[in-house]
Amino acid sequence: MDPNPESAVLIEPVALVRSPFEEKFGIPRQPGLVEAAVGEVRLLPPYSDPAMLTGLDGFSHIWLIFQFDRCVSQGWRPRVRPPRLGGNAEVGVWASRSPFRPNFLGLSVVRLLEVVLQPEPLLRVAGIDLLDRTPVFDIKPYIPYADAQRDAQGGFAHTSPGRHAVVRFCAQAEQDLAALPDPERMRALVSEVLALDPRPAYRRGAEPDRLYGMRLAGRNVRWRVLADAVEVLDLGPADD
Amino acid sequence: MDPNPESAVLIEPVALVRSPFEEKFGIPRQPGLVEAAVGEVRLLPPYSDPAMLTGLDGFSHIWLIFQFDRCVSQGWRPRVRPPRLGGNAEVGVWASRSPFRPNFLGLSVVRLLEVVLQPEPLLRVAGIDLLDRTPVFDIKPYIPYADAQRDAQGGFAHTSPGRHAVVRFCAQAEQDLAALPDPERMRALVSEVLALDPRPAYRRGAEPDRLYGMRLAGRNVRWRVLADAVEVLDLGPADD
Repeated sequence: MDPNPESAVLIEPVALVRSPFEEKFGIPRQPGLVEAAVGEVRLLPPYSDPAMLTGLDGFSHIWLIFQFDRCVSQGWRPRVRPPRLGGNAEVGVWASRSPFRPNFLGLSVVRLLEVVLQPEPLLRVAGIDLLDRTPVFDIKPYIPYADAQRDAQGGFAHTSPGRHAVVRFCAQAEQDLAALPDPERMRALVSEVLALDPRPAYRRGAEPDRLYGMRLAGRNVRWRVLADAVEVLDLGPADD
Repeated sequence: MDPNPESAVLIEPVALVRSPFEEKFGIPRQPGLVEAAVGEVRLLPPYSDPAMLTGLDGFSHIWLIFQFDRCVSQGWRPRVRPPRLGGNAEVGVWASRSPFRPNFLGLSVVRLLEVVLQPEPLLRVAGIDLLDRTPVFDIKPYIPYADAQRDAQGGFAHTSPGRHAVVRFCAQAEQDLAALPDPERMRALVSEVLALDPRPAYRRGAEPDRLYGMRLAGRNVRWRVLADAVEVLDLGPADD
């Protein structure tokens, strides 16, 4: 009966995330920051039986336990430099939500928009901060009385990160947006992502004209950060 | 680069829980319900380097991702009968926090009382709902702005479960308490656990004189549920 604490455990994906975030750069640092980041949690057999989802639609939010699978090959680090501390100060990995952690497990709460049963069971979710094709190992309903700790103190990450007030699309970007199937949805996604200023901390304040690019929802989004706004230059097709 | 969603992943315990809950019966159904349930999260090498804990003491709460390891041998179930629905109605396992779930992963937020570095690194935590010797696979700081969803709707488990107003200790129980090293701590633990009425739903209202027993913090606690109160009969030594 006595479990062996040293023993490793084999877990397998129960679902796969489809997300507009196709590379790590630009992903919000926590879930819920970009409400326009809508994705899908596609259940994998044998965990996709619709009977397993009965009653889930009564919950507004769900937890996803996943693996930062694209970080595994780089290994975990005992100390990390959280972006919230400017990328300079170190903390222990257990005091952080860094992906470079033992077992590379991640935890995100996302808004549950819809439980879809046909043709394949999937959950439509908003506010995701996960890379496309992230493997999910558990899905749990968010239980407010247990999970929402209203008196919690959050150390160096207590409050939500600041946002840029203005994200501006220049003429070429407007033209690129107009050619997309759902321009306003993409405008909202790009605006919310860039308002969070995904630049690494050491870049901030340096090289004001520097051009940044990220692959997002199948487009290559390019922008720069000006004194008073973020300016989106274009949204060209993404290279495969 | 493309991950294989079908592939299983090996994870290993980073810590082991020491808890007053030595059997499943009586464990609160969510964390935070029994503040007097104080335990330890003992880090295991190579994940116990004190440098990995720097900065954690600034957080009031932590997440534990663990495995319901004593449930694995019984297998997971696609549908479950949550105690909150009286043990009759079924829901899908993805709509529940049942331990009998694929991968058997659990998620609990607990209050961080103290980060202890010597002689062995451990975290003193309160409000635990974990079985003694539960293996922990990840420890994360609770980040209020991301984790505390104030507008979340919690389906059938939205509000905290009810409690019995009165837990009474009879003469033998008082005598047993008085012989313990910390009687008031044990009184608080027993009172908070029994106020939640750990009886299975199908027992409620039936057999009012039935005697219940649970192993808790090294004692065998026996009680019965009366119309107006829970009565603790004795706290004898637990059999090993």
